[in-house]
Amino acid sequence: VSELEGLAGQIAAVDGELVREAQRLLDGKTKPRGSLGRLEELATRVAAAHGLLPPRELAPAVVVAAGDHGVAGEGVSAYPQEVTAQMLANFASGGAAVAVLSRSVGARLVVVDAGVAVPSRVPGVLDLALGRGTANAAAGPAMPVAIAREGLLRGAGLGAQLVSEGAGAVALGEMGIGNTTSAAALTCSLLGCPPQAACGRGTGLDDAGLARKVAVVERMLEVNGYPADPVEALAALGGYELALLAGVALGSARGRAVVVLDGFISSVAGLVAARIAPALVGYLVASHRSPEPGHTLVLDALGLAPLLELELRLGEGSGAALALPLVEASRAILVEMASFADAGVTDTGR
Amino acid sequence: VSELEGLAGQIAAVDGELVREAQRLLDGKTKPRGSLGRLEELATRVAAAHGLLPPRELAPAVVVAAGDHGVAGEGVSAYPQEVTAQMLANFASGGAAVAVLSRSVGARLVVVDAGVAVPSRVPGVLDLALGRGTANAAAGPAMPVAIAREGLLRGAGLGAQLVSEGAGAVALGEMGIGNTTSAAALTCSLLGCPPQAACGRGTGLDDAGLARKVAVVERMLEVNGYPADPVEALAALGGYELALLAGVALGSARGRAVVVLDGFISSVAGLVAARIAPALVGYLVASHRSPEPGHTLVLDALGLAPLLELELRLGEGSGAALALPLVEASRAILVEMASFADAGVTDTGR
Repeated sequence: VSELEGLAGQIAAVDGELVREAQRLLDGKTKPRGSLGRLEELATRVAAAHGLLPPRELAPAVVVAAGDHGVAGEGVSAYPQEVTAQMLANFASGGAAVAVLSRSVGARLVVVDAGVAVPSRVPGVLDLALGRGTANAAAGPAMPVAIAREGLLRGAGLGAQLVSEGAGAVALGEMGIGNTTSAAALTCSLLGCPPQAACGRGTGLDDAGLARKVAVVERMLEVNGYPADPVEALAALGGYELALLAGVALGSARGRAVVVLDGFISSVAGLVAARIAPALVGYLVASHRSPEPGHTLVLDALGLAPLLELELRLGEGSGAALALPLVEASRAILVEMASFADAGVTDTGR
Repeated sequence: VSELEGLAGQIAAVDGELVREAQRLLDGKTKPRGSLGRLEELATRVAAAHGLLPPRELAPAVVVAAGDHGVAGEGVSAYPQEVTAQMLANFASGGAAVAVLSRSVGARLVVVDAGVAVPSRVPGVLDLALGRGTANAAAGPAMPVAIAREGLLRGAGLGAQLVSEGAGAVALGEMGIGNTTSAAALTCSLLGCPPQAACGRGTGLDDAGLARKVAVVERMLEVNGYPADPVEALAALGGYELALLAGVALGSARGRAVVVLDGFISSVAGLVAARIAPALVGYLVASHRSPEPGHTLVLDALGLAPLLELELRLGEGSGAALALPLVEASRAILVEMASFADAGVTDTGR
């Protein structure tokens, strides 16, 4: 058994009986049954992930991992590659959206260099770099399979560390010029859908740019032989930040933390992780729905409905950070609300 | 000019130029233009309400007002009337959903007796009671017009007080057995729609209960002569908590605070207030969409799109409390995010 297979085997399936017990507890709270709607299902999901009723503290962490993509050279983004490293510095100095939003919601932000092309040398960046930008996946594999495995393990190590430092929820964010192209190719490979269905405008492509992106994804799939194995697909079509985040998901779930997905790219990382360890799905929460068409395909494949629909298309973990107060609120309802008996409120049983 | 008309005239129309200036500021932040979706529009709305760029602190307050309804005697609720006073005590002691959620999101909770049938004598309840439950609006007006005006003014006084104590956002919550019936009748009267279109199952009616509710609303409208003037409609068909909350909306907006609506009932209070002072609409934020069909009619009439769709049907201000972190996050983006120039990030102008 490889180290990765060992890790996958250590992720416990969530306990359906604990979910039902959490719902019974909610049904005794001073409110009509089910009247908190999706917040109630979210609360049972937190309890199931933690394997505890009541669940433990959330103390959320947001991981934002940055990596560069060789495929960016194919002209699939409206932005130059230098922006990845610039934004890594902006995450670390606290001025980027995900930094502002993490502060706003009281979450710890962990900024990771998963492999930008030009290293940043910025204080406050965790260096887990797997290389200096991937190879062009339209001409061959983005990275060797051994590097993809290494990325998964480094990410899992980070997830385990965050849990050991108290995180009961870990949110996944990313930055990488070209990474919606990589995510679209992975979606096609893992879900068997055509490139047109998975490709969107990313952070600002026009019609010609979108057509070019579809053609590049077709080439990526042809050149790499439509790999369906999650680790092989990740190596051939993925990116360093995708490998790292899939690993963070695995390591966090092994430590029984909730894993909060952001948009298309982090959700593809979640899909890769769930293909490696199917029990992972019970730990996932979908924060928002991005306008990238591939995102809905991936969420449907994972059986997840997003909490927010705010037309966010930034990435970085911005939507995941925005959903954290809802996750915390659902937990608070389960832990702190009075029961009918506690409060002396008449219960009609409805 | 009456005191109420004077108040209405003091609500300033929000400044369209300030909205555009806020959007220009957002467009210079380190993210693709518009990529924070509806959070950006929310940020401009906060700035417009405050009349300041950057906007001031949010320091949000949640007002939950409780009142009893004579029409509850017509069997329009699955719950007995005693629950209103029991829940008032539960709000004040901190065990009710809105108390838990307000704590969870860092908002101040203000619990108001607007007129429950049996006074609560609970510490921590602000007594602004307009009576001991309204009269049965299916047999005549719920309250005299003078009492409706008094409720609006008391509410406005509370809104002004909260603003003077620092609130930059005030969320509206309510409790009152029978109050979806009152809200439905007000919706029909103010929007000219039929009772079937505005009536829903409230907190748990079956098919027979819903049919009875529609018939009761028809009777309320016939008996009271379909009043279209907002204050007359409020007096004839409304409730003490509705009058009070409409007043809180007016007083908060006069103090340039954002007013966050909750579900159907608080949104009807917002509609009444907006009919009294049309400039109020620029201060409103819709937190969530409830499954009550009348809620969507009222939000459409106000031109508001809700931030959350979580199938909440509790009321109390629960959805408004849950939306407050989004309002705060939008403000933080506007205030704290780095510009392209600040952060040395390449701006492609997209």
